[in-house]
Amino acid sequence: MGTIRVAYFSGYGHTARLAAAVLDGITSVGAAAAGIVVDAEGNLPETAWTELREADTIVFGCPTYMGCIPWQYKRFIDASSQVWAAQGWRDKLAAGFTNSGSMNGDKHMTLSYLFQLAMQHAMLWVGPGLMPANKVLSQRDDINYLGAFHGLMAQSPADAGADLAPGTGDLETARLFGQRVARASLRWQSGDIA
Amino acid sequence: MGTIRVAYFSGYGHTARLAAAVLDGITSVGAAAAGIVVDAEGNLPETAWTELREADTIVFGCPTYMGCIPWQYKRFIDASSQVWAAQGWRDKLAAGFTNSGSMNGDKHMTLSYLFQLAMQHAMLWVGPGLMPANKVLSQRDDINYLGAFHGLMAQSPADAGADLAPGTGDLETARLFGQRVARASLRWQSGDIA
Amino acid sequence: MGTIRVAYFSGYGHTARLAAAVLDGITSVGAAAAGIVVDAEGNLPETAWTELREADTIVFGCPTYMGCIPWQYKRFIDASSQVWAAQGWRDKLAAGFTNSGSMNGDKHMTLSYLFQLAMQHAMLWVGPGLMPANKVLSQRDDINYLGAFHGLMAQSPADAGADLAPGTGDLETARLFGQRVARASLRWQSGDIA
Amino acid sequence: MGTIRVAYFSGYGHTARLAAAVLDGITSVGAAAAGIVVDAEGNLPETAWTELREADTIVFGCPTYMGCIPWQYKRFIDASSQVWAAQGWRDKLAAGFTNSGSMNGDKHMTLSYLFQLAMQHAMLWVGPGLMPANKVLSQRDDINYLGAFHGLMAQSPADAGADLAPGTGDLETARLFGQRVARASLRWQSGDIA
Repeated sequence: MGTIRVAYFSGYGHTARLAAAVLDGITSVGAAAAGIVVDAEGNLPETAWTELREADTIVFGCPTYMGCIPWQYKRFIDASSQVWAAQGWRDKLAAGFTNSGSMNGDKHMTLSYLFQLAMQHAMLWVGPGLMPANKVLSQRDDINYLGAFHGLMAQSPADAGADLAPGTGDLETARLFGQRVARASLRWQSGDIA
Repeated sequence: MGTIRVAYFSGYGHTARLAAAVLDGITSVGAAAAGIVVDAEGNLPETAWTELREADTIVFGCPTYMGCIPWQYKRFIDASSQVWAAQGWRDKLAAGFTNSGSMNGDKHMTLSYLFQLAMQHAMLWVGPGLMPANKVLSQRDDINYLGAFHGLMAQSPADAGADLAPGTGDLETARLFGQRVARASLRWQSGDIA
Repeated sequence: MGTIRVAYFSGYGHTARLAAAVLDGITSVGAAAAGIVVDAEGNLPETAWTELREADTIVFGCPTYMGCIPWQYKRFIDASSQVWAAQGWRDKLAAGFTNSGSMNGDKHMTLSYLFQLAMQHAMLWVGPGLMPANKVLSQRDDINYLGAFHGLMAQSPADAGADLAPGTGDLETARLFGQRVARASLRWQSGDIA
Repeated sequence: MGTIRVAYFSGYGHTARLAAAVLDGITSVGAAAAGIVVDAEGNLPETAWTELREADTIVFGCPTYMGCIPWQYKRFIDASSQVWAAQGWRDKLAAGFTNSGSMNGDKHMTLSYLFQLAMQHAMLWVGPGLMPANKVLSQRDDINYLGAFHGLMAQSPADAGADLAPGTGDLETARLFGQRVARASLRWQSGDIA
């Protein structure tokens, strides 16, 4: 119970760091979790489809390239059309995260799409549930400085390597997002199915 | 437990019929539910804010006017900013429905917005989870003929009164949507909160 | 020729400052322009509908409240359904801008909706066309620091009065956005209509 | 002058038929046009990037798979990031079309994304500008029966081959859409650049 899979693609390592922070958050509240990596050609490891089918919750994550999910991640998603036809992910919980170079950079589109995907798969969606840091005295490393609600958004300057970005605030936001997803997953799994 | 409020605005009666079908679906699986009507000036009954605060689940519903929610419904939502500041709807379940004259008619925007609203309020979202009727032999009155996933979509011709539309298929789709929301609400409420 | 109307609503003065910067940009390249203010009840001045009908280009602007346009602005838009039925804004150019407290704060939804509105009205859409400031050395007051593309986005801390925000970078971004809209408007108006 | 490229991907031939209808509409009003096909691996012909750079207008088209553009089409778009960095498509006109099995089927997301892409590339966007067929007596083969505004939407039943679908109404809608794009392109190209 409480098995969560974080299925992500990372082009340059920034999203992988986010995924690690999300996983850290998930396990910190006692849920079992593991990452599944979509590779540079959009393929998954052999066992991934089984792991996804058996998971209680799937967290989708990828960078935002040209304003939406990278083609590699879409290839994974297009391959999920067979799962969709059989409604194999029905009633799982879903959540999503993304990273890009700009503060906005149309990350909203990526998360909107990941949500929509989850709805096609008849999953339920849980967001970060974090209030934004939007005051005069707010700092870049505050929790949810970007002011995202659909899912987790992080920002890494276009010329910063994955050793330098995302920053500590975005990573801590990712950890708290993971905690929320895990708690929701545990609650949902323990509920009575009519 | 299992108290669901369907908060809706109806300009000409079509959305009210949808709301009735959603409520019928909810109660048919044993959940308690009631409607809350947003009036022609965007105001709610006196007790509505208390009812919403005490509800386990809120279903948002309104027609699509000029490609998004009507101003009256947005007035209700803007008034919810005080609830938002106190995160008064946190961890409730949410869902949404809409009606318009065209098959598409940008209803997608309305449902996308209602989802986003729910995320700002730190709620979880459940969609209809119904496969689309998209085959050569599919008929207008089939379940989910419109092929909607974020929430329930219905279509009523622009010159059809609420006695004639939405049609039986869209109304039955609304009933099934209500059942799914109710079952998810019961499951979520019965789950263990960490 | 080249008459541009900036139709905006401002709740606390921040969006009014943006509108002034947009207007300044428009007139700086030789286009004629004026603002039209949507009031606190969602009403327009008597002459506004005529001015909008006669304009070559309409720029839509409003803050983002609860993740989308304020009810007052939607009331103005819902009133435009009569113009829509007669396609009275057909072939005009359109553009949009918004302001909110967070970096993202779902401003994307507001601009997506304003675009959609323009498409329903059979208008053409022009965005800011500004590259994002998304490098390690980028500063808050750089041009398009927010990384917006649909239209102009500005950010004003939730506790900063309109005397303090938006900041100089966002205001200069607004001015450049106005210049781009004006140049596009002049070009479109001078083109041959088949 | 007036050179329009229709860059499309077609998985099973339906979108190719739409593209042909769009091209037919474009040439029927005297604009020069040609198609560019994205192949099954997301690659373009050798000369395509040059053709796109030299075009006045680019029309983007693809089916909607799992609620958004297919991975093959996204691969083409991700490859356009180099063009984006140099702003090579700046000030071109853009438009978009899509096809899927359901009436809605989240085609709105596909068109919203294609619009967003155009905005990142600093292009201007033109929609179909067609009123919806949304009356009691409206028929499936009426113009804009689907009620789309961002761009052209067509619907082909999931089990209908490209010889049977899209139907005559959607194809004629595609032709009219092509005419509108062509007229806008000719007007925009003939206008004075400040």
